[in-house]
Amino acid sequence: MTSTNIPQIHDTIRAVQWHGDRLRLLDQRLLPAEEKWIDCRDSESVYHAIKDLAVRGAPAIGIAAAWGVVLAALRGEPLEQALAHLRSARPTAVNLMWALDRMKARIAAGADTQALEREAKAIQDEDLAANRHMGELGAALIAPGSSVMTHCNTGSLATSGFGTALGVIRAGVSAGRIQQVYAGETRPWQQGARLTMWELVRDGIPAKLIADSAASHLMKSGEVKWVIVGADRIAANGDTANKIGTYQLAIAARHHGVKFMVVAPSSTVDMATASGDDIEIELRDSAELLSVAGRRTVVEGAQAWNPVFDVTPASLIDAIVTERGVIEQPTVEGMRAVFTA
Amino acid sequence: MTSTNIPQIHDTIRAVQWHGDRLRLLDQRLLPAEEKWIDCRDSESVYHAIKDLAVRGAPAIGIAAAWGVVLAALRGEPLEQALAHLRSARPTAVNLMWALDRMKARIAAGADTQALEREAKAIQDEDLAANRHMGELGAALIAPGSSVMTHCNTGSLATSGFGTALGVIRAGVSAGRIQQVYAGETRPWQQGARLTMWELVRDGIPAKLIADSAASHLMKSGEVKWVIVGADRIAANGDTANKIGTYQLAIAARHHGVKFMVVAPSSTVDMATASGDDIEIELRDSAELLSVAGRRTVVEGAQAWNPVFDVTPASLIDAIVTERGVIEQPTVEGMRAVFTA
Repeated sequence: MTSTNIPQIHDTIRAVQWHGDRLRLLDQRLLPAEEKWIDCRDSESVYHAIKDLAVRGAPAIGIAAAWGVVLAALRGEPLEQALAHLRSARPTAVNLMWALDRMKARIAAGADTQALEREAKAIQDEDLAANRHMGELGAALIAPGSSVMTHCNTGSLATSGFGTALGVIRAGVSAGRIQQVYAGETRPWQQGARLTMWELVRDGIPAKLIADSAASHLMKSGEVKWVIVGADRIAANGDTANKIGTYQLAIAARHHGVKFMVVAPSSTVDMATASGDDIEIELRDSAELLSVAGRRTVVEGAQAWNPVFDVTPASLIDAIVTERGVIEQPTVEGMRAVFTA
Repeated sequence: MTSTNIPQIHDTIRAVQWHGDRLRLLDQRLLPAEEKWIDCRDSESVYHAIKDLAVRGAPAIGIAAAWGVVLAALRGEPLEQALAHLRSARPTAVNLMWALDRMKARIAAGADTQALEREAKAIQDEDLAANRHMGELGAALIAPGSSVMTHCNTGSLATSGFGTALGVIRAGVSAGRIQQVYAGETRPWQQGARLTMWELVRDGIPAKLIADSAASHLMKSGEVKWVIVGADRIAANGDTANKIGTYQLAIAARHHGVKFMVVAPSSTVDMATASGDDIEIELRDSAELLSVAGRRTVVEGAQAWNPVFDVTPASLIDAIVTERGVIEQPTVEGMRAVFTA
């Protein structure tokens, strides 16, 4: 299918870049106002970039952490200590643990610094290939001419490139299957407003920003056919931890007969976690809700509750798309069929 | 039931004040950072205060508009023109139309300026009395020791005083029925974050702010027993227009077995509107989503969709509380039993 109305997808953003002796990270806290790059030259600076959200998105966190181990090796840091420290940077995304386990296995196998560098590069390259493959698999599920909704940022910024949920959207737009994208703001960090809209506008994809709480009103109109989101951890039964608000979208989608798709590389699947009940949900500082753009917006003395992830039960998910294949109506058995070696 | 832990409710805020020759309005756009008062001395300035959200909240809008008519009379403005202009300030809240209809009827009956002043004062006083009565009726539905959730601002700031949904919360806290309040931020205007938290902290009510999209994650814990919201218009079948996000909360509440209460004076009920499908939903400027606190947060060229109300169908509402009584599981018949004279 070709049409002059279908935008060209450029996909030129690479937010995590290895430069031989340093890791360059696009500081996602400042976008879209400022495109500032951070150079990390040791594992400690990578730890802080992850913890303080300069780099975010489950796959990107894993890739950055792998390069953090390479930096530790280059500088002669104690590697076990670097691994443990990087692992503690954020608790919910399993890709962080997965990437560090891969690096740890290479270290245990006696890999030298060059071999560690090759392993980190493999993690990064495999992620990009997985995203392109998932894009095709996910887009194939969507009827031509659909409008879709997404949440948070799952694009090039959150991965090695192309994106997970946003990769499906890119592929779906290229194929003429998606004609309109709605992006939720994603309070409190505004990843949808700041990052996803930045990526969509750069690619010329027809997109509108909405308040997170406008999603149900939008779905009521019948225009949206799919909600497409990423994941920070997928349990063995298909329960999916993702950005706060995802669970609420899944409930609203089911209520309106809108389909719900989770897109994530297999590194996000944690078969050692039985169900969503076993996933640790990161609570962040209430200050993130009490101030906006550095300005206090809520009265002094006020308290806030700021969980930044939630768990969507598998029963509300229509399809989990990974580079190993699509699991429709996910169950323990359906997950095991794809994810047991 | 008495307990030293139950906060005293002060209820000292009066955001709409008549001073004999001018209407003083607490500018709600600047709270909580600044408590600035606006003096309106003609109907045009009242029109702008309503349109530009210096005064908001369905009952408060109606009261302010009634005083706008008094100002028009005091200044010898053409009254029909003032009525029509004020009526056009905002489309969704029916209290605006209701209050102006009351003033129009008095004008048609040949009322002088003093009589119009008495009518506006009656509208304001009746609203306060209605709120206190609704507070008792609504609180009686709540089991002792409950946690509740609310959305937007429905307190003293949104009414003549005490509040509608927040009035029920005040009464419920005083009676020991409510032990904890969760307030949604209410994007994009942050009425929950800026205004409701301000009122709750002033009254010493235990309260936590949450992101709008964290509501379902909170409900999953089982702690919240009721969602309590106000209304901008209630149709003849009980369908309720209210701040964007209300509908999404109602879906989430039903999914979790949490009860859903709408609290509004009878001036909010529009028996001439058959159902929610007939209610005009105000779309506001997309700039409200593209900037935060006056600073552009979204990339240039981005579009947004900014409906500021939505409609919750009666089927998702467990109780509509008005000063004339409580309608449980609202239907056309249940509404008609209370609202047909």
